[in-house]
Amino acid sequence: MRKTVARLADGRQLIYYDDADGGDSPARPADSRNLPPLNVGSELRFDPLVDEWVTIAAHRQGRTHLPDDAECPLCPSREGALSEIPASDYDVVVFDNRFPSLAADVGELAASGEDGEDGEDLVPRQPGIGHCEVVCFTSDHHGSFGQLTPTRARTVLEAWADRTIELGLQPGVEQVVPFENRGVEIGVTLQHPHGQIYALPFASPRTRRMLAAARSHRRRTWRNLFADVLATEREAGTRIVAENEHWTAFVPAAARWPVEMHLYPHRQVPDLPALSDAERDAFCHLYLDLLRRLDRLYDTPLPYIAAWQQAMVNIDRDLSYLRLELFSIRRAEDKLKYLATMESAMGVFLNDVRPEDVAQRLRDLGD
Amino acid sequence: MRKTVARLADGRQLIYYDDADGGDSPARPADSRNLPPLNVGSELRFDPLVDEWVTIAAHRQGRTHLPDDAECPLCPSREGALSEIPASDYDVVVFDNRFPSLAADVGELAASGEDGEDGEDLVPRQPGIGHCEVVCFTSDHHGSFGQLTPTRARTVLEAWADRTIELGLQPGVEQVVPFENRGVEIGVTLQHPHGQIYALPFASPRTRRMLAAARSHRRRTWRNLFADVLATEREAGTRIVAENEHWTAFVPAAARWPVEMHLYPHRQVPDLPALSDAERDAFCHLYLDLLRRLDRLYDTPLPYIAAWQQAMVNIDRDLSYLRLELFSIRRAEDKLKYLATMESAMGVFLNDVRPEDVAQRLRDLGD
Repeated sequence: MRKTVARLADGRQLIYYDDADGGDSPARPADSRNLPPLNVGSELRFDPLVDEWVTIAAHRQGRTHLPDDAECPLCPSREGALSEIPASDYDVVVFDNRFPSLAADVGELAASGEDGEDGEDLVPRQPGIGHCEVVCFTSDHHGSFGQLTPTRARTVLEAWADRTIELGLQPGVEQVVPFENRGVEIGVTLQHPHGQIYALPFASPRTRRMLAAARSHRRRTWRNLFADVLATEREAGTRIVAENEHWTAFVPAAARWPVEMHLYPHRQVPDLPALSDAERDAFCHLYLDLLRRLDRLYDTPLPYIAAWQQAMVNIDRDLSYLRLELFSIRRAEDKLKYLATMESAMGVFLNDVRPEDVAQRLRDLGD
Repeated sequence: MRKTVARLADGRQLIYYDDADGGDSPARPADSRNLPPLNVGSELRFDPLVDEWVTIAAHRQGRTHLPDDAECPLCPSREGALSEIPASDYDVVVFDNRFPSLAADVGELAASGEDGEDGEDLVPRQPGIGHCEVVCFTSDHHGSFGQLTPTRARTVLEAWADRTIELGLQPGVEQVVPFENRGVEIGVTLQHPHGQIYALPFASPRTRRMLAAARSHRRRTWRNLFADVLATEREAGTRIVAENEHWTAFVPAAARWPVEMHLYPHRQVPDLPALSDAERDAFCHLYLDLLRRLDRLYDTPLPYIAAWQQAMVNIDRDLSYLRLELFSIRRAEDKLKYLATMESAMGVFLNDVRPEDVAQRLRDLGD
């Protein structure tokens, strides 16, 4: 993997990650667009009813929404169609989102009156510090992660690991989350195959709950919760979809989603940078196999969410266990699972599909 | 309000709640359909990663999905079109859902092998005990809650309060949640104006978090968290949408959704049955006013979720404070807020709309 750092016209960082393993980077044109200054300024507010931070990002309402293919901002630039990537081709690029929910420089909080006048005592506020990056997996507008070569998938993984290290060194960053949202069914606003990386200034609520469960489990058993879950699934076998020497993919026994898989490395590591060379290669082969199975489930590609659960930057790294969670809201060829009152207002998940049944279907869809 | 209990052909309970305040109930025909026996059998599984119960209800995949108007199961029965309601007209009816996620008699858990063989040690299971009821607000297929008369809204409230008492007396019920999902955008499968009531055998995850926050707040301040939130909002004023003598509706300061309102009674009560006569009437007037405002936000009716947060049946009633939470995923005329990775995989909510701005818009939309 070869890495070249550049800047876009408005000062945002863009990094080329090439499949090639050395040698000189190709010459690449500078960004010649005339871009307006970035408009960022989100605010974090603490919800006292559930002890969680919420991000208010009012400046994002005007973000790019399903542009025509010819105007895709993630395709390479060409004469008359300058995109976010100045080069005429690329392998993998990572750059700062132009419409970030969180940013390194969000300015001062908007004054809302006298101290405490607007309820700040009970609902503390903070500037929306953090980072939101876009990761393009390929210059092919009509591709998908599942269609990448193992070499390219490895370059993406190297980019994720590199950004995990770099973002973890930035002021205020507590957690780095590489992820992919795929499919208009879940609100993806750009069709070009891409993912994102969020660097959060707090532990996500779900991470906090998982670390609390892991701490309680260790206190009782002296063991790691996630390692025990993996061992239990490997022993039961009924929910395993696929595995290789270094990784196992299974449908969790208490799955929330009609399609859901968790990918665990066999060795407990806190985050992507801690994976060995062999583990990285093994992940790419297993993941590509699984993504191809998912797209065979229905006549059209499966909308999905795939998120890396990594250790926090500064705390509880010994409790943590790197893994990828992947799930879909599609519950039948023409039906989606919607989050309605039980899920959205109460946190109670209703799953219409038995985990063992979806595991069997996915096992049967192998090459 | 006048109440008449009946049974459907397959043994499910149906209750007529009439607007009329006494006198004899009208004669109503029995359910003459030939219904197959109920097929229920959901399972609860405990997710050890976040310490929460998940409901696996595999028998629900075949439930009725957006039938033609002529085959609406919630309209009154007529010659040749027998529905779930045998009568030729009704005011409000409540009946057991034919495709329940939870049921009083769910039978034995399906055996999955030797004890512990399939991971039950780490992922405990329980039968999906509970109740799922349907509440029809009107016999008018094309109506909506917001178009009800205050008298009819009051009959609905009486039905909610009555069912809260009755369901709370059933074995295993820990929490009763009356709610309405409105709009195909959030997956509503029947267009006829209706809501539902779930009786859960556990505290919902969101309820648990709110009670934990309320307990911590009381330990520090000797005060009730929800009462303090209400007092803070009434003093700030910037997020109040509407109020009357007994209720205040405001956009929460850390709102998660592009449209969100919480309705608090001014007096701390644990649940709907504890509301006074005057409080019940005042709620109906305020709620109808608010629902009409919501439908003026856009050219088409607003999809929304409205859920009563009531005290648990048996515990922490002193910490609890009845209120209604209402929110929508619509963030613009033609745009929905989707729950993608940050919300669904991490629990981090990103809201594109400032709470103060939506409160101002809703204030301006009053009659």
